[in-house]
Amino acid sequence: MNDTAGHLEPFGVDIDLLTGAMKDPDSYKCTVASTMIPYYADTEAIKRLVETQDDPVHYEVFEKDVPEAEGHIRICISKLLPGKVGEEFFMTKGHYHTVLETAETYLCIAGEGFLLMKTTDGRCLWEPFRPGRLVYCPSSWAHRSINTGPAPLVSLCHYPANAGHNYGDIVKEGFPKRCFDRSGTPVFQ
Amino acid sequence: MNDTAGHLEPFGVDIDLLTGAMKDPDSYKCTVASTMIPYYADTEAIKRLVETQDDPVHYEVFEKDVPEAEGHIRICISKLLPGKVGEEFFMTKGHYHTVLETAETYLCIAGEGFLLMKTTDGRCLWEPFRPGRLVYCPSSWAHRSINTGPAPLVSLCHYPANAGHNYGDIVKEGFPKRCFDRSGTPVFQ
Repeated sequence: MNDTAGHLEPFGVDIDLLTGAMKDPDSYKCTVASTMIPYYADTEAIKRLVETQDDPVHYEVFEKDVPEAEGHIRICISKLLPGKVGEEFFMTKGHYHTVLETAETYLCIAGEGFLLMKTTDGRCLWEPFRPGRLVYCPSSWAHRSINTGPAPLVSLCHYPANAGHNYGDIVKEGFPKRCFDRSGTPVFQ
Repeated sequence: MNDTAGHLEPFGVDIDLLTGAMKDPDSYKCTVASTMIPYYADTEAIKRLVETQDDPVHYEVFEKDVPEAEGHIRICISKLLPGKVGEEFFMTKGHYHTVLETAETYLCIAGEGFLLMKTTDGRCLWEPFRPGRLVYCPSSWAHRSINTGPAPLVSLCHYPANAGHNYGDIVKEGFPKRCFDRSGTPVFQ
């Protein structure tokens, strides 16, 4: 960002198309396992993970700063580590946008998994992630990444900069489906 | 797009992260050399190219259909062929957005070149394209791709779906700078 009036100069940012690493991000957000305790089915398993692994990183977000105003586009790299809590695959908290009428795209650069999506009236769908797969999450759908592979799941996200994030509903409601490893196969149930 | 009311279901689309090819685009736009005659400095050279090469493809756009309304995001692949008109590198027509307060991002997947940008008050800047380089074109900046390499320049573009395209001004005004091959080096002048 170039000034306080919300004006923005053209800029470029390098993203490694094999690993998804962003060079020189403006901001970095780290979510550790202890903040994920309310989200998994097996509360004891996530608590054990926090204790035995010294509250490890669960996922990271690398961003370029643009004004949070209409017409601008926010871009970030989301990196979700691999692993399981019991048999449930690692996932992000998930969120609605505060401005419901805003979409988001996820371009998977590395790893594999799913984008799990739900509406407030109970619909629930998921789209697979694999390198090169762009998933379009339309307006009004909450969304959560799930990593079903052995390596980090890394996606480049684009969304309207005025979208905002609403995490609160997800803690209360959860998603209608969870993704478990059943004998080596990801199963939603 | 899933219905006429502008509602959209989640979807995915595969993009080859080496070549930039989009699988199963919903629409395809092709710009041929004859429509580029007003844009190049050397009018005779572009006319010769049209005649001797049977009006070849100059650039192509592959798109997924989403409603052209606020909150949605349009995604497309832009593929600009390599070549020169005299010493001037192949380029796209360039455009402003009809809704000026809308940004656009270009993620270069293959090839090399520049995104040339200008404002209505005469400012002009350019950002390099190389694989993995994401260029952010802010609100109000007209933009044009230029291919300075030996292979197609392929970019994945994201922009607010209500942006619209305004090509008319560019035909009249042009850009303050052009990009020429001067003894093997791209030079803006």
